[in-house]
Amino acid sequence: MLQHFFNPSSVAVVGASQNPHKIGYEILENIIQYNFRGAVYPINPKADEILGQKAYPDLMSVPGKIDLAVIVVPPALVMDVVEQCGEKGVDSVIIITAGFKETGPKGSHLEEALAVRARALGIHVVGPNCLGIIDTTSSLNASFAEGMPLPGHIGFFSQSGAMCIAILDWAFGQNIGFSRFVSLGNKMDISEVEIMLSMERDANTRVILGYSESIDNGPHFMEAARRVCQTKPIIIIKSGTTSAGAKAASSHTGALAGSDNAYTAAFKQSGVIRAKSMQDLFGYAMAFATQPLPEGPSVAIVTNSGGPGILAADACDRSSLHLTPIRKETADRLREFLPPTAAVYNPVDIIGDATEERYEKTLEVILQDDMLHSVLILLAPTAAVDAEAVAYSIVKLAKNADKPIITVFMGERGVRRARRILQDHSIPSYEYPEDAISAMDAMASYRRWREKPPRQYRHFKGDTGKVRQIFSSIIKQHRHDLIESEAREVLRAYQFRLPENRIAKTTKEAVLAASEIGYPVVMKIASPDVLHKSDMGGVRVGIENDAQVEEAFFDMTSSIRLRQPDARILGVMVQEMIPQGKEVILGITRDMQFGPMIMFGLGGIYVEVLKDVSFRIAPLSVESADAMIREIRSFPLLRGVRGEAPADIEAIRDALLRLSQIAIDFPEIIEADINPLLVCPEGQGAVAVDARFTIHE
Amino acid sequence: MLQHFFNPSSVAVVGASQNPHKIGYEILENIIQYNFRGAVYPINPKADEILGQKAYPDLMSVPGKIDLAVIVVPPALVMDVVEQCGEKGVDSVIIITAGFKETGPKGSHLEEALAVRARALGIHVVGPNCLGIIDTTSSLNASFAEGMPLPGHIGFFSQSGAMCIAILDWAFGQNIGFSRFVSLGNKMDISEVEIMLSMERDANTRVILGYSESIDNGPHFMEAARRVCQTKPIIIIKSGTTSAGAKAASSHTGALAGSDNAYTAAFKQSGVIRAKSMQDLFGYAMAFATQPLPEGPSVAIVTNSGGPGILAADACDRSSLHLTPIRKETADRLREFLPPTAAVYNPVDIIGDATEERYEKTLEVILQDDMLHSVLILLAPTAAVDAEAVAYSIVKLAKNADKPIITVFMGERGVRRARRILQDHSIPSYEYPEDAISAMDAMASYRRWREKPPRQYRHFKGDTGKVRQIFSSIIKQHRHDLIESEAREVLRAYQFRLPENRIAKTTKEAVLAASEIGYPVVMKIASPDVLHKSDMGGVRVGIENDAQVEEAFFDMTSSIRLRQPDARILGVMVQEMIPQGKEVILGITRDMQFGPMIMFGLGGIYVEVLKDVSFRIAPLSVESADAMIREIRSFPLLRGVRGEAPADIEAIRDALLRLSQIAIDFPEIIEADINPLLVCPEGQGAVAVDARFTIHE
Repeated sequence: MLQHFFNPSSVAVVGASQNPHKIGYEILENIIQYNFRGAVYPINPKADEILGQKAYPDLMSVPGKIDLAVIVVPPALVMDVVEQCGEKGVDSVIIITAGFKETGPKGSHLEEALAVRARALGIHVVGPNCLGIIDTTSSLNASFAEGMPLPGHIGFFSQSGAMCIAILDWAFGQNIGFSRFVSLGNKMDISEVEIMLSMERDANTRVILGYSESIDNGPHFMEAARRVCQTKPIIIIKSGTTSAGAKAASSHTGALAGSDNAYTAAFKQSGVIRAKSMQDLFGYAMAFATQPLPEGPSVAIVTNSGGPGILAADACDRSSLHLTPIRKETADRLREFLPPTAAVYNPVDIIGDATEERYEKTLEVILQDDMLHSVLILLAPTAAVDAEAVAYSIVKLAKNADKPIITVFMGERGVRRARRILQDHSIPSYEYPEDAISAMDAMASYRRWREKPPRQYRHFKGDTGKVRQIFSSIIKQHRHDLIESEAREVLRAYQFRLPENRIAKTTKEAVLAASEIGYPVVMKIASPDVLHKSDMGGVRVGIENDAQVEEAFFDMTSSIRLRQPDARILGVMVQEMIPQGKEVILGITRDMQFGPMIMFGLGGIYVEVLKDVSFRIAPLSVESADAMIREIRSFPLLRGVRGEAPADIEAIRDALLRLSQIAIDFPEIIEADINPLLVCPEGQGAVAVDARFTIHE
Repeated sequence: MLQHFFNPSSVAVVGASQNPHKIGYEILENIIQYNFRGAVYPINPKADEILGQKAYPDLMSVPGKIDLAVIVVPPALVMDVVEQCGEKGVDSVIIITAGFKETGPKGSHLEEALAVRARALGIHVVGPNCLGIIDTTSSLNASFAEGMPLPGHIGFFSQSGAMCIAILDWAFGQNIGFSRFVSLGNKMDISEVEIMLSMERDANTRVILGYSESIDNGPHFMEAARRVCQTKPIIIIKSGTTSAGAKAASSHTGALAGSDNAYTAAFKQSGVIRAKSMQDLFGYAMAFATQPLPEGPSVAIVTNSGGPGILAADACDRSSLHLTPIRKETADRLREFLPPTAAVYNPVDIIGDATEERYEKTLEVILQDDMLHSVLILLAPTAAVDAEAVAYSIVKLAKNADKPIITVFMGERGVRRARRILQDHSIPSYEYPEDAISAMDAMASYRRWREKPPRQYRHFKGDTGKVRQIFSSIIKQHRHDLIESEAREVLRAYQFRLPENRIAKTTKEAVLAASEIGYPVVMKIASPDVLHKSDMGGVRVGIENDAQVEEAFFDMTSSIRLRQPDARILGVMVQEMIPQGKEVILGITRDMQFGPMIMFGLGGIYVEVLKDVSFRIAPLSVESADAMIREIRSFPLLRGVRGEAPADIEAIRDALLRLSQIAIDFPEIIEADINPLLVCPEGQGAVAVDARFTIHE
C-alpha cells in the first residue's frame, strides 16, 4: 500500500525549475542529490535539461511508466496536471502547491473539485500544501526540506510543514534517524490513517510519530490506530487542545478541531500514546525507537548522586512505574563491591566517588535481576567519574540486555560527548530525570495496553422499528426534542428498566394513576418544551396521598404556565418512586470527527459543578465501559463509603453498553441524557428514571 | 550579612594539600587560579609552600586576620580546627568535610557537638558535607567544583552537591552566569534562610534559585522568603515531594522531608515560585535573570509557522496568561507590510516565507502596543529565514524594550548559532513553546503576587486562661483527646457560635434537656473514647419528641457498649438542631517543619472521598483564608448552584482565622477538626456543630 509514494521506480517533478531559488528546483535537486535509484523526469515545457536530467514538456511525453508525480505548478494549473496523470496512468501524486483550503472558501472549492477528480481517476494524493515525502530506505527525498535525515526507525507524519522542518532540524542535531517522513498538508486524500497503515507494514519503522491538528474521519482513524498499535507504538502530539489553540488551528489550516475530550477518549481506546508536549514527543520517540519494551512496571534507578535520584523517584511516584525495593540477593551482590556508605535500596546510590568501573559492575548486577524491568542510569559529572567511559560501559552491557536502559547525564559541557556516544549507540539519553521517567512510563503503559486481551463487544438487539417510528413521527411534527414518554419508549425498546408510570391530563386522572401505581409516587410535568424540569418547578417527589397529588398537579401546571407561558403541556406524568439508590448520569453527545461519544458521571453536582465525568467513543467495549465508570474521581461513592452497600456497577455497565448501542443504531441522535439512572445496591439493577433525547433530521 | 563568606579579605584553607588529587589541593587551586584578590593561607603542618603560597602549620601561626576558613581535614579533626578558629577570631567557616549527619547516628552526634561549639564561639558555618562557595563578583571560588562560572545575576543554593556540579556544568554549556553559588550541605548552621537574606542584599543577584530536600525551620524560612520575594524572585525545586522521593531523600541526607502539602502552602504564602522539574528551574531562571517583569498577563505570539503557534496557544490556555486579540490599530499597522495570507490575530502568523526583515518589522509594531505585556517569538528554520539575522534583530529591538521578550527557535542544527546569539545577549531562548510559556507564566504570576497589597492579619483575643485550664486538666487525666463538651469550651473561648446543648446522664435528664432546648434536637454520645461517633451509632438527628429521646438514649448507649465495651460513657449530649446550612470541615494538623497547618474542605465525601481540601500554614492572613476557601474544586457549591442562596463565606473565613489563632496560641494542639461547621446562608453566620481536639503534653 502506498508503495509508489515511498518506493517508486520512477518520479516525475511537474513544475521542475532551472531557478535554484524555486521549490521546483529544490525538490528535483533533493531527489537527485540524495541518490534516488529510479528514473527521474523533470517536467517543464521551457527546458531541455535540468540538473543534468533530460526535461519533458509534459507527462505524456515521458517515454517510460511514472510511479509518482510531484506537482509544484501554480494552483490554477494543478487540475490540468492531475488530468494528465490520469491519462498517463500515474496513480500516486504529491501536490506541493499551496493556495487551496488553507486560503479560504475559494481555495476550498478548488481543492474539493481536485479531490473529486482524483478519486474518479483512481489517483492517490498527498497534500496539497505540503513539504513532500522522504523515505530513507529507498533514498527518496521528494521534498523541499533542507537535508536528508539519517536512516533510522522512526516513521513521522505531520499536518504542519513547519513542524516537519523543525523536527528534521532537531533530528540532525541529535543524530536521530527516520525511516519515513511525510508532510500531510491539507490531507485532501491521504491522511494519518493511510500513512499509519503503510508504516505498519514497513519493516524499517519501529515507532510511528505524528503531529495532528485535526483528524477528519474519527472512526477510520480509531480502527487503523487500534490495529497498528498491536504491533507498533503510535505517538501523536495533538495541538489545538484548548479553546485558544483550536482558534489558532482553525485560522491556520481551516481544520475544524474536534473537542479535546473526544481525542482523549479516541486515543485511549485505540492505544495511541498522546504526547503532551514537543519534548515528550521527541523523548518518547528516542526510547521506543531504540529500546525493547519493559516486561513490567518495575524500575531500577542507579545514580552517583542523591539529589537527581530523589527527583527521579518523585517522577516515578507520579507515574505508573514502581520503584521496587532491590531484593536481598541483588543487594548482597552489590554490597560485595560497593562502599559501605552506598545505598542499595532503590535508587541505588553508588555515591559521589563512583568511577566508571563501579557504574559498570552495578549495571551488570541490576541487569541480571529479572524483578527489575527497566533501568535508569543517572550521572552527575563529578571529578571521580569519566562520563565517556561510563557511556561506553553502558553501550557494551546494553548489547546483550533484554530490558530498556535509559540514561540521564546531568549537565552540559562535561557530559555532551558522553551523551553523543550513547545516542550514536542507540541508548536514549535525556537531560533531566523527569523526561526519562516520562518516556519509561509511556513504554510500560503501552506494553500494558498491548497485552490486554482483545476487547469484548456486546450487541444488544433493540426494537429499532419502534424507535424509528417514534423518531419519524417527531420529525413530522417539526420537533427535535422527545417528550418524556417518547424517551421512555426508546429506552424500553432497548430493555432498560423503567419506573412504572402513567400520563395524567387531569387532577382526577393523576389521582387514579397514583393509586394504581401505589404510593409514594413522583410527579413530573409532561411537556416537549420544558427541558430542565426540576429547575422550572416541574418535578415533585415523595408524594404520599391523594391530596398531595391534587396539590402537586395544580402547583406544577401553574408554575410552568407562569414561568414558560408558551410551553405545550401534555399533562403530568405520575411515576413509581424508586425507593433508594445512587443517581448517575449517562449521556450521548456527537463529536464532529469521532461521532457518538458516551458520557458518564455521578448525578447532580458531580457532573454540573465538579465536572467529574468520563468519555468514550461509541461503540463501547465492555472494558471501556468498565474503565469509564472507574475513571471518575467520585467512583469510591459507587463502591460504597462508610460501610454503605456498593452500588450495582454491573448494571451501570449494562446501561452504558445499551446506550452505546442506541447511539450506534441511530446516528440521528445528537444528544441524549439518562438523568438519573438510579442504581440500586449490588445485584439489584438500575432504573432509568428520566431521559432526554434530541434528534436531527 | 555573611560578608566574610562571599567577600572576605583573607581565606585560610585548613587541610590544604600538595597532592593534586586531593580536595584540599583543588580548593586552594580554585581560590588562586580564579584570581581571588585577598590573602590566601594554606594550612598544612607538613608543607612550607603549596601552589606558590606560603603554608602555615596551623591557624594561629598565620600573621594576619582571617575572614574565612575552609576546612577539609578528616571529620575527627574538624572540632579541633573549629576551636582554633575561635581562638584566632575567625567568624566564618566552610566545612567541606563529609562524614557527619549523612552517615548515621554517630556522625549526627558529632555534627551536633560541632554546632553547639561553633555557636558558643560565635562562628557561622556553611556545611559540613558540601562543595563550597563561589562568588563571581569578588572572584572567590572556595569550592572543589571544576571551573568558575561566568559572572551573572543568578544566585544559587543547593542542599545537594551533585546538583551543584550538574548545574554548573549545564551553565557552562548554556553560557549562563551566576552571582553566587552556595553548596549548603548538611546545613548545620547556615541554611536557605541566611543565604536568601544575603542574596537579597547582593546587588548582583537578580533571581534566587534553589534546590531543597527539606527545610528545617519552616516559620523562619517563610518569614525570610516573604520578605525577599518583595524585591527578588525565589525559585525552588523541592525534591522528595512524593512518598518514594521522600524515602530516597531520608536515606540520602538524613533529612526529614516535610509533607508536600505543607511545602506547597508555605511556598504559596511566601511568594516562592516552585519549579516542578529541573527544566522549569533552569527555564525560569533564564527568564527572570534577564527580562523585566511583564506589566500584565497579556502575551503576543509571533510565529512563521502555524503548528508551533498552536502549541504555544494551547500552553497559554493552560496557564494564567491571556492570548489577547491584537487590537485594530496594531493589526492595521501590521497589515501594511504583511502579506494578505498572514494572520494578524494572536498568534500573529507571519507565515512560512517570512524573512528576518518581516520578523523585525512585526516585533517593532508589537513592542509598541501597550496592551501586549510580553512577546513570544517562534521561529521554524524555513529556507526563507536567516535565523541568525532574526536573532540580531531581536537583540537590537530588545535594547529599548520595556517588556519581556522570549524566544523559541525550533530545531537544532539550523538554529543552534542563532540561539547562542540570543543567549549571549540575554534573550532567553527555549527549545519548545511549552517551556517558554511556562516561564512567562511564572513571571506574570510573580508580578501579581508582588503587587498584592500587604496581607492583613487579625488578632482574636481568646480566653487563653480558660483553654489552658482545660488542657492541663486533660493532661492530668492522662488523656490526649478532648471530649465534646471540652472541645466546645475551647471553641467558646474563641467566640465560635455553638448550638445550645446539655449533657444528660439519664433518660430523664435527656428528656428534660430536649424540652428546654426545644424540638427538634440532635443527640450524641458523650465519650472521650469514641472518636468517630456517627460510624459507631453514636449520633441521632431530627429527634422530634420525648418518646424519640428516650429511644435514642437507650439505643445509643447500648450500641456503644456493644461495639466498644471499654469506652467510658459520660452521658449523652442533647443539642439544638441547626435548621439548615452547608457542612464544611476546618482542621488543624501539625507539620514537622512548618508547624500548625490549617485545612479546609466541604463536609462528608468531599473531604473523605474526593480529597478536595486546601491547606495553609498558620497564622493565616485574611487573604490566605479567602484563597483557601476559593481553592477547593467544590467551591461553587458554597457560592450556590441551581438558584440556591450562597453560603455565608465571610463566616467561614472568620472561623478559619479564629482556628488559626487557636493553633498559634496553643502549640500543644497536634490535631483538631471542626466537623461540621454548619454554614448558614449569606449574612446568617456559621455554627460549629462538632469538634475534636488532640493535644500532647
